[in-house]
Amino acid sequence: MRRSLYQRLGRALPRQAQAPNPLLVNVSARHCHLTPQAVEALFGEGAGLTPMKWLYQKDQFAAQETVTLIGPRSRVISNLRILGPCRDLNQVELALTDAIALGFDIPVRSSGNIAGTPGCMLMGPAGFFEMKEGVIRAAPHVHLHSDDAAFYGVKAGEHLRLRVGGPCATTFDRVLARVHADFKLEVHIDTDEGNACALEPGTPVELVR
Amino acid sequence: MRRSLYQRLGRALPRQAQAPNPLLVNVSARHCHLTPQAVEALFGEGAGLTPMKWLYQKDQFAAQETVTLIGPRSRVISNLRILGPCRDLNQVELALTDAIALGFDIPVRSSGNIAGTPGCMLMGPAGFFEMKEGVIRAAPHVHLHSDDAAFYGVKAGEHLRLRVGGPCATTFDRVLARVHADFKLEVHIDTDEGNACALEPGTPVELVR
Repeated sequence: MRRSLYQRLGRALPRQAQAPNPLLVNVSARHCHLTPQAVEALFGEGAGLTPMKWLYQKDQFAAQETVTLIGPRSRVISNLRILGPCRDLNQVELALTDAIALGFDIPVRSSGNIAGTPGCMLMGPAGFFEMKEGVIRAAPHVHLHSDDAAFYGVKAGEHLRLRVGGPCATTFDRVLARVHADFKLEVHIDTDEGNACALEPGTPVELVR
Repeated sequence: MRRSLYQRLGRALPRQAQAPNPLLVNVSARHCHLTPQAVEALFGEGAGLTPMKWLYQKDQFAAQETVTLIGPRSRVISNLRILGPCRDLNQVELALTDAIALGFDIPVRSSGNIAGTPGCMLMGPAGFFEMKEGVIRAAPHVHLHSDDAAFYGVKAGEHLRLRVGGPCATTFDRVLARVHADFKLEVHIDTDEGNACALEPGTPVELVR
Protein backbone atom coordinates (compact mmCIF):
# COMPACT_ATOMS: atom_id res chain seq x y z
CA MET A 1 0.00 0.00 0.00
CA ARG A 2 2.67 2.46 1.07
CA ARG A 3 4.90 1.08 -1.69
CA SER A 4 2.30 1.72 -4.38
CA LEU A 5 1.65 5.22 -3.03
CA TYR A 6 5.30 6.15 -3.37
CA GLN A 7 5.43 4.63 -6.83
CA ARG A 8 2.47 6.77 -7.90
CA LEU A 9 4.26 9.83 -6.58
CA GLY A 10 7.28 8.88 -8.64
CA ARG A 11 9.54 8.94 -5.61
CA ALA A 12 12.00 6.43 -4.29
CA LEU A 13 10.65 4.43 -1.42
CA PRO A 14 12.10 5.91 1.79
CA ARG A 15 14.54 3.56 3.46
CA GLN A 16 12.46 3.42 6.60
CA ALA A 17 9.42 2.20 4.76
CA GLN A 18 11.27 -0.80 3.39
CA ALA A 19 12.67 -2.11 6.68
CA PRO A 20 11.18 -5.56 7.17
CA ASN A 21 11.21 -5.33 10.97
CA PRO A 22 11.05 -2.62 13.64
CA LEU A 23 14.36 -1.67 15.24
CA LEU A 24 14.74 -2.43 18.93
CA VAL A 25 17.71 -1.15 20.93
CA ASN A 26 18.17 -2.74 24.33
CA VAL A 27 20.71 -2.11 27.05
CA SER A 28 22.40 -5.21 28.44
CA ALA A 29 23.43 -4.79 32.06
CA ARG A 30 26.43 -6.84 33.19
CA HIS A 31 25.69 -10.57 33.16
CA CYS A 32 27.22 -13.97 32.59
CA HIS A 33 26.72 -17.09 30.51
CA LEU A 34 27.63 -20.41 32.10
CA THR A 35 28.15 -24.05 31.18
CA PRO A 36 26.07 -26.76 32.87
CA GLN A 37 29.24 -27.76 34.79
CA ALA A 38 29.69 -24.25 36.15
CA VAL A 39 26.03 -24.07 37.20
CA GLU A 40 26.40 -27.35 39.10
CA ALA A 41 29.58 -26.19 40.82
CA LEU A 42 27.89 -22.96 41.91
CA PHE A 43 24.36 -24.18 42.70
CA GLY A 44 24.80 -27.89 43.50
CA GLU A 45 24.68 -31.23 41.72
CA GLY A 46 21.80 -31.50 39.30
CA ALA A 47 21.03 -27.77 39.48
CA GLY A 48 19.93 -25.90 36.39
CA LEU A 49 18.79 -22.41 35.47
CA THR A 50 15.24 -21.22 36.13
CA PRO A 51 13.80 -18.70 33.67
CA MET A 52 12.77 -15.48 35.42
CA LYS A 53 12.16 -13.27 32.38
CA TRP A 54 12.15 -14.17 28.72
CA LEU A 55 14.29 -11.97 26.49
CA TYR A 56 13.55 -10.78 22.97
CA GLN A 57 15.80 -13.30 21.21
CA LYS A 58 14.32 -16.78 20.81
CA ASP A 59 14.70 -19.10 23.85
CA GLN A 60 16.94 -16.63 25.74
CA PHE A 61 16.10 -15.73 29.32
CA ALA A 62 17.33 -13.97 32.42
CA ALA A 63 17.61 -16.64 35.09
CA GLN A 64 16.42 -16.39 38.68
CA GLU A 65 19.94 -17.45 39.65
CA THR A 66 22.70 -14.91 40.23
CA VAL A 67 26.34 -15.24 41.28
CA THR A 68 28.92 -13.12 43.04
CA LEU A 69 31.87 -12.04 40.92
CA ILE A 70 35.17 -11.57 42.74
CA GLY A 71 37.58 -9.24 40.98
CA PRO A 72 41.36 -8.83 41.20
CA ARG A 73 41.19 -5.89 43.63
CA SER A 74 39.20 -8.01 46.12
CA ARG A 75 36.11 -6.09 45.18
CA VAL A 76 32.95 -7.95 44.33
CA ILE A 77 29.82 -7.55 42.27
CA SER A 78 26.89 -9.25 43.97
CA ASN A 79 23.80 -10.46 42.15
CA LEU A 80 25.43 -10.83 38.74
CA ARG A 81 22.59 -12.12 36.61
CA ILE A 82 23.00 -15.37 34.67
CA LEU A 83 21.45 -15.47 31.20
CA GLY A 84 20.19 -18.83 30.00
CA PRO A 85 20.08 -21.32 28.53
CA CYS A 86 23.50 -22.78 29.42
CA ARG A 87 26.21 -22.46 26.79
CA ASP A 88 29.34 -24.40 26.00
CA LEU A 89 31.60 -21.71 27.45
CA ASN A 90 31.68 -19.40 30.46
CA GLN A 91 31.63 -15.68 29.79
CA VAL A 92 31.18 -12.61 31.96
CA GLU A 93 30.13 -9.41 30.18
CA LEU A 94 30.90 -6.14 31.99
CA ALA A 95 30.70 -2.50 31.04
CA LEU A 96 34.05 -0.72 31.21
CA THR A 97 32.85 1.24 34.26
CA ASP A 98 32.21 -2.07 36.07
CA ALA A 99 35.56 -3.44 34.98
CA ILE A 100 37.50 -0.39 36.17
CA ALA A 101 35.74 -0.47 39.56
CA LEU A 102 36.65 -4.14 39.98
CA GLY A 103 40.19 -3.83 38.62
CA PHE A 104 39.79 -5.83 35.42
CA ASP A 105 41.63 -4.82 32.26
CA ILE A 106 39.21 -6.24 29.71
CA PRO A 107 39.20 -6.17 25.93
CA VAL A 108 36.28 -5.50 23.62
CA ARG A 109 35.25 -8.82 22.10
CA SER A 110 32.42 -10.38 20.21
CA SER A 111 30.53 -12.94 22.26
CA GLY A 112 32.32 -16.30 22.35
CA ASN A 113 35.69 -14.89 21.33
CA ILE A 114 37.34 -15.14 24.72
CA ALA A 115 40.84 -16.51 24.06
CA GLY A 116 43.41 -14.63 26.13
CA THR A 117 40.89 -12.60 28.13
CA PRO A 118 41.07 -12.27 31.95
CA GLY A 119 39.54 -14.89 34.20
CA CYS A 120 37.76 -14.45 37.53
CA MET A 121 36.30 -16.28 40.50
CA LEU A 122 32.55 -16.78 40.79
CA MET A 123 30.79 -17.64 44.03
CA GLY A 124 27.40 -19.29 44.34
CA PRO A 125 25.39 -20.79 47.20
CA ALA A 126 26.98 -24.24 46.69
CA GLY A 127 30.56 -23.28 45.97
CA PHE A 128 33.13 -21.45 43.91
CA PHE A 129 33.90 -21.75 40.21
CA GLU A 130 37.07 -20.36 38.71
CA MET A 131 36.97 -19.11 35.14
CA LYS A 132 40.43 -19.20 33.58
CA GLU A 133 39.31 -16.68 30.97
CA GLY A 134 36.11 -15.12 29.64
CA VAL A 135 35.68 -11.69 31.24
CA ILE A 136 34.98 -9.30 28.36
CA ARG A 137 33.37 -6.09 27.33
CA ALA A 138 30.94 -7.18 24.65
CA ALA A 139 31.22 -5.18 21.44
CA PRO A 140 27.99 -3.31 20.69
CA HIS A 141 26.20 -5.60 18.25
CA VAL A 142 23.03 -6.07 16.31
CA HIS A 143 21.15 -9.32 15.89
CA LEU A 144 19.83 -9.51 12.35
CA HIS A 145 17.54 -11.97 10.69
CA SER A 146 18.76 -12.78 7.19
CA ASP A 147 16.02 -10.49 5.81
CA ASP A 148 17.30 -7.61 7.97
CA ALA A 149 20.87 -8.24 6.87
CA ALA A 150 19.78 -8.08 3.24
CA PHE A 151 17.88 -4.86 3.86
CA TYR A 152 20.80 -3.14 5.59
CA GLY A 153 23.26 -4.57 3.05
CA VAL A 154 25.48 -6.11 5.68
CA LYS A 155 27.12 -9.49 6.23
CA ALA A 156 27.89 -11.21 9.52
CA GLY A 157 31.05 -9.73 11.03
CA GLU A 158 30.66 -6.37 9.28
CA HIS A 159 29.62 -3.20 11.08
CA LEU A 160 26.67 -0.84 10.98
CA ARG A 161 26.23 2.52 12.65
CA LEU A 162 23.56 3.21 15.25
CA ARG A 163 22.36 6.79 15.44
CA VAL A 164 20.70 7.72 18.70
CA GLY A 165 18.91 11.06 18.91
CA GLY A 166 17.75 13.18 21.82
CA PRO A 167 19.59 15.52 24.18
CA CYS A 168 22.69 13.28 24.33
CA ALA A 169 22.66 12.36 20.63
CA THR A 170 25.37 9.83 19.92
CA THR A 171 26.36 7.67 16.96
CA PHE A 172 27.90 4.28 17.64
CA ASP A 173 30.08 3.83 14.58
CA ARG A 174 31.04 0.16 15.02
CA VAL A 175 28.02 -1.99 15.75
CA LEU A 176 28.91 -5.58 14.94
CA ALA A 177 26.44 -7.41 12.71
CA ARG A 178 25.45 -10.91 13.82
CA VAL A 179 23.20 -12.75 11.40
CA HIS A 180 21.10 -15.85 12.01
CA ALA A 181 17.79 -17.20 10.75
CA ASP A 182 16.56 -17.34 14.36
CA PHE A 183 17.51 -13.75 15.19
CA LYS A 184 15.07 -10.88 15.56
CA LEU A 185 16.31 -7.38 14.74
CA GLU A 186 17.75 -6.01 17.99
CA VAL A 187 20.75 -3.91 18.93
CA HIS A 188 22.49 -4.65 22.22
CA ILE A 189 24.56 -1.94 23.87
CA ASP A 190 25.98 -2.02 27.39
CA THR A 191 25.15 0.26 30.31
CA ASP A 192 28.02 2.68 29.59
CA GLU A 193 26.83 3.07 26.02
CA GLY A 194 23.19 3.26 27.06
CA ASN A 195 23.94 5.89 29.70
CA ALA A 196 26.29 7.88 27.46
CA CYS A 197 23.45 8.41 24.98
CA ALA A 198 20.78 8.54 27.73
CA LEU A 199 18.71 5.92 25.94
CA GLU A 200 15.11 5.84 27.10
CA PRO A 201 11.92 4.38 25.70
CA GLY A 202 11.00 6.69 22.86
CA THR A 203 14.50 7.94 22.12
CA PRO A 204 14.82 8.03 18.31
CA VAL A 205 17.18 5.39 16.92
CA GLU A 206 18.31 4.60 13.39
CA LEU A 207 20.56 1.91 12.02
CA VAL A 208 22.61 2.97 9.02
CA ARG A 209 25.35 1.50 6.91
CA MET B 1 54.83 27.14 4.60
CA ARG B 2 52.23 24.39 4.50
CA ARG B 3 49.67 26.94 3.34
CA SER B 4 51.80 28.00 0.40
CA LEU B 5 52.50 24.40 -0.54
CA TYR B 6 48.80 23.62 -0.76
CA GLN B 7 48.21 26.80 -2.73
CA ARG B 8 50.89 25.76 -5.23
CA LEU B 9 49.21 22.39 -5.60
CA GLY B 10 45.93 24.13 -6.31
CA ARG B 11 44.19 22.34 -3.46
CA ALA B 12 42.12 23.58 -0.57
CA LEU B 13 44.01 23.69 2.68
CA PRO B 14 42.98 20.62 4.67
CA ARG B 15 40.92 21.52 7.70
CA GLN B 16 43.38 19.90 10.08
CA ALA B 17 46.25 22.06 8.91
CA GLN B 18 44.43 25.27 9.84
CA ALA B 19 43.46 24.38 13.40
CA PRO B 20 45.09 26.97 15.65
CA ASN B 21 45.41 24.65 18.64
CA PRO B 22 45.73 20.93 19.27
CA LEU B 23 42.56 19.14 20.35
CA LEU B 24 42.53 17.66 23.84
CA VAL B 25 39.73 15.39 25.02
CA ASN B 26 39.62 14.77 28.75
CA VAL B 27 37.32 12.63 30.85
CA SER B 28 35.85 14.32 33.91
CA ALA B 29 35.14 11.90 36.72
CA ARG B 30 32.31 12.87 39.08
CA HIS B 31 33.14 15.96 41.10
CA CYS B 32 31.66 19.04 42.71
CA HIS B 33 32.06 22.82 42.74
CA LEU B 34 31.38 24.62 46.01
CA THR B 35 30.87 28.12 47.36
CA PRO B 36 33.16 29.46 50.13
CA GLN B 37 30.21 29.11 52.53
CA ALA B 38 29.78 25.41 51.69
CA VAL B 39 33.52 24.80 52.13
CA GLU B 40 33.41 26.39 55.58
CA ALA B 41 30.36 24.37 56.60
CA LEU B 42 32.05 21.14 55.51
CA PHE B 43 35.66 21.79 56.54
CA GLY B 44 35.39 24.37 59.32
CA GLU B 45 35.45 28.14 59.79
CA GLY B 46 38.12 29.82 57.70
CA ALA B 47 38.80 26.68 55.66
CA GLY B 48 39.57 26.92 51.96
CA LEU B 49 40.53 24.60 49.11
CA THR B 50 44.08 23.34 48.67
CA PRO B 51 45.25 22.71 45.08
CA MET B 52 46.36 19.10 44.60
CA LYS B 53 46.62 19.02 40.81
CA TRP B 54 46.33 21.86 38.31
CA LEU B 55 43.94 21.23 35.44
CA TYR B 56 44.31 22.27 31.80
CA GLN B 57 41.99 25.28 31.98
CA LYS B 58 43.51 28.42 33.52
CA ASP B 59 43.48 28.58 37.36
CA GLN B 60 41.36 25.42 37.70
CA PHE B 61 42.49 22.69 40.06
CA ALA B 62 41.50 19.42 41.70
CA ALA B 63 41.52 20.10 45.43
CA GLN B 64 43.01 17.88 48.10
CA GLU B 65 39.63 18.11 49.82
CA THR B 66 36.86 15.62 49.10
CA VAL B 67 33.35 15.20 50.47
CA THR B 68 30.87 12.38 50.93
CA LEU B 69 27.72 12.59 48.83
CA ILE B 70 24.59 11.09 50.34
CA GLY B 71 21.95 10.10 47.83
CA PRO B 72 18.21 9.54 48.09
CA ARG B 73 18.51 5.75 48.37
CA SER B 74 20.77 6.14 51.45
CA ARG B 75 23.70 5.19 49.31
CA VAL B 76 26.83 7.28 49.40
CA ILE B 77 29.76 8.20 47.21
CA SER B 78 32.86 8.73 49.32
CA ASN B 79 35.80 10.84 48.24
CA LEU B 80 33.90 13.02 45.81
CA ARG B 81 36.58 15.39 44.55
CA ILE B 82 36.09 19.14 44.83
CA LEU B 83 37.33 21.24 41.92
CA GLY B 84 38.58 24.72 42.72
CA PRO B 85 38.59 27.60 42.94
CA CYS B 86 35.33 28.21 44.79
CA ARG B 87 32.39 29.36 42.69
CA ASP B 88 29.24 31.30 43.42
CA LEU B 89 27.05 28.21 43.30
CA ASN B 90 27.17 24.61 44.43
CA GLN B 91 27.04 21.94 41.79
CA VAL B 92 27.62 18.17 41.77
CA GLU B 93 28.42 16.58 38.41
CA LEU B 94 27.74 12.85 38.10
CA ALA B 95 27.76 10.40 35.24
CA LEU B 96 24.38 8.75 34.66
CA THR B 97 25.79 5.42 35.92
CA ASP B 98 26.68 7.13 39.24
CA ALA B 99 23.28 8.79 39.41
CA ILE B 100 21.38 5.55 38.83
CA ALA B 101 23.43 3.74 41.48
CA LEU B 102 22.65 6.51 44.00
CA GLY B 103 19.01 6.91 43.03
CA PHE B 104 19.18 10.39 41.51
CA ASP B 105 17.05 11.29 38.51
CA ILE B 106 19.26 13.98 37.02
CA PRO B 107 18.92 16.07 33.88
CA VAL B 108 21.61 16.92 31.35
CA ARG B 109 22.60 20.52 31.91
CA SER B 110 25.30 22.98 31.00
CA SER B 111 27.43 23.97 33.97
CA GLY B 112 25.75 26.64 36.11
CA ASN B 113 22.26 25.96 34.76
CA ILE B 114 20.92 24.18 37.82
CA ALA B 115 17.43 25.59 38.37
CA GLY B 116 14.99 22.80 39.22
CA THR B 117 17.62 20.06 39.49
CA PRO B 118 17.76 17.62 42.44
CA GLY B 119 19.57 18.53 45.65
CA CYS B 120 21.61 16.34 47.96
CA MET B 121 23.38 16.20 51.31
CA LEU B 122 27.16 16.56 51.48
CA MET B 123 29.23 15.47 54.47
CA GLY B 124 32.68 16.76 55.37
CA PRO B 125 34.95 16.42 58.40
CA ALA B 126 33.41 19.50 60.07
CA GLY B 127 29.75 19.02 59.24
CA PHE B 128 26.97 18.61 56.74
CA PHE B 129 25.90 20.93 53.96
CA GLU B 130 22.57 20.57 52.22
CA MET B 131 22.31 21.54 48.58
CA LYS B 132 18.73 22.42 47.65
CA GLU B 133 19.55 21.86 43.98
CA GLY B 134 22.59 21.41 41.73
CA VAL B 135 23.05 17.69 41.05
CA ILE B 136 23.42 17.38 37.28
CA ARG B 137 24.84 15.37 34.47
CA ALA B 138 27.06 17.87 32.69
CA ALA B 139 26.44 18.04 28.96
CA PRO B 140 29.52 17.02 26.98
CA HIS B 141 31.16 20.33 26.12
CA VAL B 142 34.14 21.91 24.51
CA HIS B 143 36.08 24.89 25.85
CA LEU B 144 37.06 27.08 22.93
CA HIS B 145 39.26 30.12 22.77
CA SER B 146 37.76 32.73 20.45
CA ASP B 147 40.30 31.67 17.78
CA ASP B 148 39.15 28.07 18.05
CA ALA B 149 35.50 29.13 17.83
CA ALA B 150 36.25 31.08 14.66
CA PHE B 151 38.09 28.11 13.16
CA TYR B 152 35.31 25.65 13.88
CA GLY B 153 32.69 28.18 12.82
CA VAL B 154 30.75 27.90 16.05
CA LYS B 155 29.26 30.33 18.57
CA ALA B 156 28.85 29.86 22.32
CA GLY B 157 25.81 27.68 22.99
CA GLU B 158 25.93 25.93 19.63
CA HIS B 159 27.03 22.34 19.19
CA LEU B 160 29.91 20.54 17.51
CA ARG B 161 30.39 16.83 16.93
CA LEU B 162 33.27 14.88 18.42
CA ARG B 163 34.38 11.85 16.44
CA VAL B 164 36.31 9.29 18.43
CA GLY B 165 38.02 6.46 16.53
CA GLY B 166 39.39 3.10 17.62
CA PRO B 167 37.70 -0.22 18.36
CA CYS B 168 34.68 1.46 20.02
CA ALA B 169 34.40 4.32 17.54
CA THR B 170 31.70 6.72 18.63
CA THR B 171 30.51 10.14 17.54
CA PHE B 172 29.13 12.51 20.16
CA ASP B 173 26.70 14.55 18.11
CA ARG B 174 25.89 17.29 20.64
CA VAL B 175 29.03 18.73 22.19
CA LEU B 176 28.17 22.12 23.65
CA ALA B 177 30.47 24.97 22.63
CA ARG B 178 31.65 27.24 25.46
CA VAL B 179 33.72 30.19 24.31
CA HIS B 180 35.96 32.46 26.38
CA ALA B 181 39.18 34.38 25.81
CA ASP B 182 40.74 32.48 28.75
CA PHE B 183 39.76 29.02 27.46
CA LYS B 184 42.14 26.54 25.92
CA LEU B 185 40.72 24.08 23.38
CA GLU B 186 39.56 21.07 25.38
CA VAL B 187 36.59 18.71 25.23
CA HIS B 188 35.19 17.40 28.51
CA ILE B 189 33.20 14.18 28.50
CA ASP B 190 32.12 12.20 31.55
CA THR B 191 33.13 8.69 32.55
CA ASP B 192 30.15 7.04 30.85
CA GLU B 193 30.99 8.78 27.61
CA GLY B 194 34.72 8.12 28.01
CA ASN B 195 34.13 4.45 28.75
CA ALA B 196 31.53 4.03 26.01
CA CYS B 197 34.11 5.07 23.42
CA ALA B 198 37.01 3.46 25.35
CA LEU B 199 38.99 6.70 25.19
CA GLU B 200 42.69 6.21 25.86
CA PRO B 201 45.77 8.31 25.26
CA GLY B 202 46.37 8.04 21.53
CA THR B 203 42.77 7.34 20.54
CA PRO B 204 42.11 9.40 17.39
CA VAL B 205 39.73 12.30 17.96
CA GLU B 206 38.29 14.91 15.64
CA LEU B 207 36.00 17.87 16.24
CA VAL B 208 33.66 18.62 13.37
CA ARG B 209 30.78 20.92 12.74
